[in-house]
Amino acid sequence: MSFTLTHHDGVARRGLLTTAHGVVETPVFMPVGTQGVVKAVTPRDLVDVGARIILGNTYHLHLRPGDELIRRRGGLHRFIGWDRPILTDSGGYQVFSLADRRKLSEEGVEFQSHLDGSRHLLTPESAVDIQLNLASDIAMVLDECPALPARYDALDRSVELTARWARRSRQHFLERRLHSDAGRGQLQFGIVQGGTEVDLRTKSAALTIAIGFEGYAIGGLSVGEASDTMYRIVESTAALLPVDRPRYLMGVGTPLDLIEAVARGVDMFDCVMPTRNARNGRLFTSEGAINIKNARYAEDDGPVDAACGCYTCRRFSRAYLRHLFLAGEMTGGTLNTLHNLNFYLDTMRRVREAIAFGTFEKFRLDFHRTFSARPLTA
Amino acid sequence: MSFTLTHHDGVARRGLLTTAHGVVETPVFMPVGTQGVVKAVTPRDLVDVGARIILGNTYHLHLRPGDELIRRRGGLHRFIGWDRPILTDSGGYQVFSLADRRKLSEEGVEFQSHLDGSRHLLTPESAVDIQLNLASDIAMVLDECPALPARYDALDRSVELTARWARRSRQHFLERRLHSDAGRGQLQFGIVQGGTEVDLRTKSAALTIAIGFEGYAIGGLSVGEASDTMYRIVESTAALLPVDRPRYLMGVGTPLDLIEAVARGVDMFDCVMPTRNARNGRLFTSEGAINIKNARYAEDDGPVDAACGCYTCRRFSRAYLRHLFLAGEMTGGTLNTLHNLNFYLDTMRRVREAIAFGTFEKFRLDFHRTFSARPLTA
Repeated sequence: MSFTLTHHDGVARRGLLTTAHGVVETPVFMPVGTQGVVKAVTPRDLVDVGARIILGNTYHLHLRPGDELIRRRGGLHRFIGWDRPILTDSGGYQVFSLADRRKLSEEGVEFQSHLDGSRHLLTPESAVDIQLNLASDIAMVLDECPALPARYDALDRSVELTARWARRSRQHFLERRLHSDAGRGQLQFGIVQGGTEVDLRTKSAALTIAIGFEGYAIGGLSVGEASDTMYRIVESTAALLPVDRPRYLMGVGTPLDLIEAVARGVDMFDCVMPTRNARNGRLFTSEGAINIKNARYAEDDGPVDAACGCYTCRRFSRAYLRHLFLAGEMTGGTLNTLHNLNFYLDTMRRVREAIAFGTFEKFRLDFHRTFSARPLTA
Repeated sequence: MSFTLTHHDGVARRGLLTTAHGVVETPVFMPVGTQGVVKAVTPRDLVDVGARIILGNTYHLHLRPGDELIRRRGGLHRFIGWDRPILTDSGGYQVFSLADRRKLSEEGVEFQSHLDGSRHLLTPESAVDIQLNLASDIAMVLDECPALPARYDALDRSVELTARWARRSRQHFLERRLHSDAGRGQLQFGIVQGGTEVDLRTKSAALTIAIGFEGYAIGGLSVGEASDTMYRIVESTAALLPVDRPRYLMGVGTPLDLIEAVARGVDMFDCVMPTRNARNGRLFTSEGAINIKNARYAEDDGPVDAACGCYTCRRFSRAYLRHLFLAGEMTGGTLNTLHNLNFYLDTMRRVREAIAFGTFEKFRLDFHRTFSARPLTA
């Protein structure tokens, strides 16, 4: 693995992350392909909007169609027809969100499938094994994702458990990597937890860095806390992470969140927001978000965003997209998804360009001003 | 309008139909875009699978988003981002299928919208006006579509009403065409009815031809009658239609139906079968239809059809398509639709080629043998 920083602009950085399936320019946004597909689009659509790396959810793929089945198909890339890099999460986040259908122990977390109620045990080691079956380019360690708000001492214990799990994960990964084709090309990232407590984040970062991973994630944010709080934690945590390793802010966020996190030294992002919002008719534009089902668009012949060059904006009007949404046509979901993903990916292209030109701060202020302009739906 | 026959092979014919939006090679299959979109795909997907002309449903578009709104958008082509030809039906078929929510009179047919229960009157003249608002390339006359089975004398009265409506449709169309931009490029097709009664079909054909249209459709078939009956009626009816005008068999059918109708002199087809079946996981292959959700495909790494060159077959396995179907991922519907449409459109390409080479009869027999082979799901 190699991660090369090519430009700095303040704390923001631009770099190249080399994986078994090619080089990824950072900062990068990763569309979410929960069940082995980015909802409503095809791989060639994803290439068209410029996606360079996508995320797959270990929890979902483990349960259906099963990671062993995917291994027998030649791994996740071949199975889903995507030959660019894939990052897989550990499955922990989904398991912990099952609330009363999971039980935590030192060994791991036992849970019941949301599909059929069957019982499963997810451990640091099995999360490694599952992701080796998927043969993703980047695997995440299993971390505890405590429900928030939580007491300080509970969060502290969670940080320590996450660190013990991270050590087991790394050890198992290194052993498997010696004896596995999939492992030879895979990178493993550790995850810093600690809620919104700066000193617990500091402790978690130190414990995780001491183990040593190819990259580091900041987990447990964007779970309801205020933006300012999130930015503060990202800033203090990112500053503790090794300069020469990629930094991944998990599950974040809005376009403004991405830019603010880049300004604090983050390199990688994933979020369902562009794809989920698209299917709900909520579209991002350079002047803020709009809701395409709004009656004001019934006879609007303009594109979603006049500043956008995506297929949807080149060919279709707001009036047509509104019609497709109201008529329940799934092609509307596809066209909306193409646009929202293009918006996110194009924003990141502009972020990288601004960093290279040393104009990131200007870009950031301009983006805030236009994107936060009075929303068109207001 | 011009329709030029370029090849004959027995009764089968190959030709070129010139419309305001380009030339269509016949025999041709028209994918159905009921609500201004062929379900689950985008216009560029349609171009990719070789669609040259699509069908829009006047009933649906009249109710939502409204044909006046579409006219103000510059017509259906511009509204939906499709610059190749479009044929629109008259809306009659859908209205008559509303059963107890419609009332027939000499004037037309009054019906209640399936969307909001609002009352509407569809007349021969309003069907013309709506389709001029849509500015389709080919408009259909309003015909009565009687529920079958029906008594002979009821069918006879229906044929006569359809002929009176056809005369009003043509007269109104010719008047509007003189004074309308949309009308100048539009063709109007008459429709032959008469159920499965050969002499009523003969009467209906004579009455319709006497009015004079740019093309002629055979309506009221594929409504539950046996295939042999349908083929017999198609054969006798097609033989009565002017040689130099396109012949359109409405709402038909299976791949075998299309080939059998071409063998009887039909030039144009539409049917929801390839698109609807695709969304239900039923896929056409050169060796018959398969149901992708079948457990036997869970670990099948082969394409849907090894003889197919579509995007779906080039890039994805049966195992993956089965996974998408079971996981409820709409991308599965898209990939299945691309394949089924490609199958229909490619079959028609091969039909046209065989006619040009004078090998249509051999093609027809070969197709029957392979397509009717023991289904792969058996």
